[in-house]
Amino acid sequence: MNENITIGIDIGGTNIELAWVKKDSSILKHIKLKTKNYLEADYLVKDIGNIILEENKNFSNYNILGIGIGAPNGNYFNGTIEFAPNLGWKGIIPLAEMFETKTGLKTKLTNDANAAAYAEMIYGGAIDMQNFLVITLGTGLGSGIVVNGQILYGSTGFAGELGHTIVENNGRQCKCGRKGCLETYASATGIKKTINNFLDQTKKASILRSLDNIQAKDIYLAAKQGDECASKAIDYTGKILGQHLSDYIALFSPEAIFITGGLAKAHSLLIPAIEKSIDENCLHIFKNTVKILPSQLLEKNSGLLGAAALITE
Amino acid sequence: MNENITIGIDIGGTNIELAWVKKDSSILKHIKLKTKNYLEADYLVKDIGNIILEENKNFSNYNILGIGIGAPNGNYFNGTIEFAPNLGWKGIIPLAEMFETKTGLKTKLTNDANAAAYAEMIYGGAIDMQNFLVITLGTGLGSGIVVNGQILYGSTGFAGELGHTIVENNGRQCKCGRKGCLETYASATGIKKTINNFLDQTKKASILRSLDNIQAKDIYLAAKQGDECASKAIDYTGKILGQHLSDYIALFSPEAIFITGGLAKAHSLLIPAIEKSIDENCLHIFKNTVKILPSQLLEKNSGLLGAAALITE
Repeated sequence: MNENITIGIDIGGTNIELAWVKKDSSILKHIKLKTKNYLEADYLVKDIGNIILEENKNFSNYNILGIGIGAPNGNYFNGTIEFAPNLGWKGIIPLAEMFETKTGLKTKLTNDANAAAYAEMIYGGAIDMQNFLVITLGTGLGSGIVVNGQILYGSTGFAGELGHTIVENNGRQCKCGRKGCLETYASATGIKKTINNFLDQTKKASILRSLDNIQAKDIYLAAKQGDECASKAIDYTGKILGQHLSDYIALFSPEAIFITGGLAKAHSLLIPAIEKSIDENCLHIFKNTVKILPSQLLEKNSGLLGAAALITE
Repeated sequence: MNENITIGIDIGGTNIELAWVKKDSSILKHIKLKTKNYLEADYLVKDIGNIILEENKNFSNYNILGIGIGAPNGNYFNGTIEFAPNLGWKGIIPLAEMFETKTGLKTKLTNDANAAAYAEMIYGGAIDMQNFLVITLGTGLGSGIVVNGQILYGSTGFAGELGHTIVENNGRQCKCGRKGCLETYASATGIKKTINNFLDQTKKASILRSLDNIQAKDIYLAAKQGDECASKAIDYTGKILGQHLSDYIALFSPEAIFITGGLAKAHSLLIPAIEKSIDENCLHIFKNTVKILPSQLLEKNSGLLGAAALITE
């Protein structure tokens, strides 16, 4: 009997990744595309659908079970992407159905952070955990929440939006239209805003002053070299995140919180700052009950693996 | 065969209620005691244990399955009450085990708000719901959270502490030792603080000025009579609660939020204020997805029924 494989698609604000994945998480084929080439969902389905149909000819020795998609604002219940500001797609897009029509393959879809949580549960550091959080620090802040061994979808399929809890009344403007959302502080976008504020407010020397357009990665590299402003920006981000993770610990009492996504590459500096802040802010009964960990799939794309695993569920 | 019944005990900051309950939630015997008479847990177990053993003689025609207890800071996993400031009990008290030893009856224990959520799920307005919140507005703010049809206990048994999420940095002093917890604003204690602040800050006439020690109930009754200061205090409480329920909606995406407890007797005034605030603060995708409801067990003691139901689970 032919071995089962699935196709995973991870749609991010910058890149789209596509992979043919075996059940043990090994990847047979990996394709990377630029999100900005797909301003319309119709064109994305047509082009990626064609790539899939073409590539599938190379996998005729396998049994392809279907397609799993992780995407911002993805709804697991409906297979739709709804009002995704990071993709520039308007309204409600029935992406799973569109891929099914195009490829003839069964397609499931979930939020990108839920896909990362799913990957952590199946392949990563949460294999033995029933209650944990995954925080993805990319352009925005995504979160996948696992309660009693199940992804928290709530009644609408959209539960788990930690990034859009308000941490500062009338704080920074968020893409969601409101002000002061956690993701305006704790994300690549947030830390860039923070460092620019710091550099404006002080005359301290910083190697970052020579850059035109500071990226999160530059801040991390500068901090590693002892740049004080960069370190302060990472500490501030960790402090805000730790303060609010303290609240989420009181809500979910997770065994661990995994930090993943682009900004999490700074985890050797960021996690100690988060831990310090949780220790200062956490309710007594939860002290020392939660591990703050980098994703155990850091070198891999956990969103992609989680998406592929949706189908073998 | 004898009919099964269970004994429920609801331990609150002011009263302890005790009942012999049938599976259909009808109460065969109901006893009310004052919490302040039990400064030590040992004495509580001895006295209430004796009452149970004595009363059980009247229920020899029934099969008594055990005792279920709802109590502040109760831990379902361990059967303990841990660091309960509202009871004045210090440290960790193995209350379930103590009752088992005293009465010979199987005993389970949970947090009082989880017991209320459990009652709402079995007997109340949440019979058909998989995802909902119960907020108990008493001396403090308790919460029972149901995810996928199960009470959210997390890894420690203490999950769901909405009352101890921080809503105002350096805000009002909380009994937990920190500042700005939601329950310092949204609870009977919180609304009393609010009205006293309002009356100090303004010279407006209010029928509440003639009272020495304003209670939450006085505020409700005054508001019903058109007292402007009282109405403002209720609106302020609803506004703060609605702002933060908007965040919890983004986390849990519940089908409904039930408002119960002493302060919830003002629900005809409080719920519209909460709804208005949620409508103003809620993330776009969750608008109009959540019903804000009074407990459907308002006239009964939902904590007591939920406690009793722990045993027939």
